Amino acid sequence: MRQLPLSKAYQLLEPGPVVLLTTARKGRANVMTMSWHMMVEFEPPQVACVVSNANHSFAALRATGKCVIAIPARRLAAKVVKVGNSSGRDIDKFAAFGLTKMPAARVAPPLITECFANLECKVTDTRFVNKYNLFILQVLKAWIDPAQRNPRTIHHRGYGTFIVDGATIKLKSRMR
Amino acid sequence: MRQLPLSKAYQLLEPGPVVLLTTARKGRANVMTMSWHMMVEFEPPQVACVVSNANHSFAALRATGKCVIAIPARRLAAKVVKVGNSSGRDIDKFAAFGLTKMPAARVAPPLITECFANLECKVTDTRFVNKYNLFILQVLKAWIDPAQRNPRTIHHRGYGTFIVDGATIKLKSRMR
Repeated sequence: MRQLPLSKAYQLLEPGPVVLLTTARKGRANVMTMSWHMMVEFEPPQVACVVSNANHSFAALRATGKCVIAIPARRLAAKVVKVGNSSGRDIDKFAAFGLTKMPAARVAPPLITECFANLECKVTDTRFVNKYNLFILQVLKAWIDPAQRNPRTIHHRGYGTFIVDGATIKLKSRMR
Repeated sequence: MRQLPLSKAYQLLEPGPVVLLTTARKGRANVMTMSWHMMVEFEPPQVACVVSNANHSFAALRATGKCVIAIPARRLAAKVVKVGNSSGRDIDKFAAFGLTKMPAARVAPPLITECFANLECKVTDTRFVNKYNLFILQVLKAWIDPAQRNPRTIHHRGYGTFIVDGATIKLKSRMR
């Protein structure tokens, strides 16, 4: 994994990929699948995300205030669905689905080796957690796997239907 | 435009497409380009979005509490960039870029005829506006253009780079 400048972190999340979210509590790591997230600020990068209180990860995220957003490419799609269809209450999803934990630099939750990008995050605002399960995160450190070139991310359309990234187009724009 | 059940609105936004946001104030409509949005609740569908206070649309959205999220397909990409690179302070973007306003049913801001989906929204929570420019919206009515089949949306990766929807894959999943 190579460090990515924090100023570029938004370019990973703004397109709306399905991501994995890792947490850790009492020495035990967990991972869930997440599609409800958005950028809130460029620098330092801040992200809003919704983690349902029905998810086992919710309590760990709220208690520890730390997580990793790991971004999987197309080839991990089947594992991403399995992660989403099971609960850390019942199984160790890393072991069950062959996802490799790698220590993060600034937070206890692990990076995921198979993901092409990993964002270490801390919770910075919990005022919307009770009403919306909405957490505000700050990205502390960003990693990218240079061995995965032009990774195609997946985007969820409901009930197991995903769109895979297609062509890239470049248009003259002044927007960041 | 045909009505879409509100229960399916999330399937349009969850994949993270670039969208257009229309507002109206004092009889004048405006439109901006937006990529920072996410689902917050399935039913009634609630959406969080960030509209920078540097955008001309910000004041109209805050003052009126109404907007339309219009979703463009690939063929509108050049117009979407032009909308993003100009301000309603200076020009009528609908006229300048050939976007057709169509009356909405429940809100004053217009639908956009050329977009394959339009979501009429009202602001339901402004408590995060001052700190994050973050609005919570509820979708009141959803429209889809049945004439646009399998529209490919675009996803922003920064500085005029967009990813176009590629292949659709279906995996066995229990996730909604």
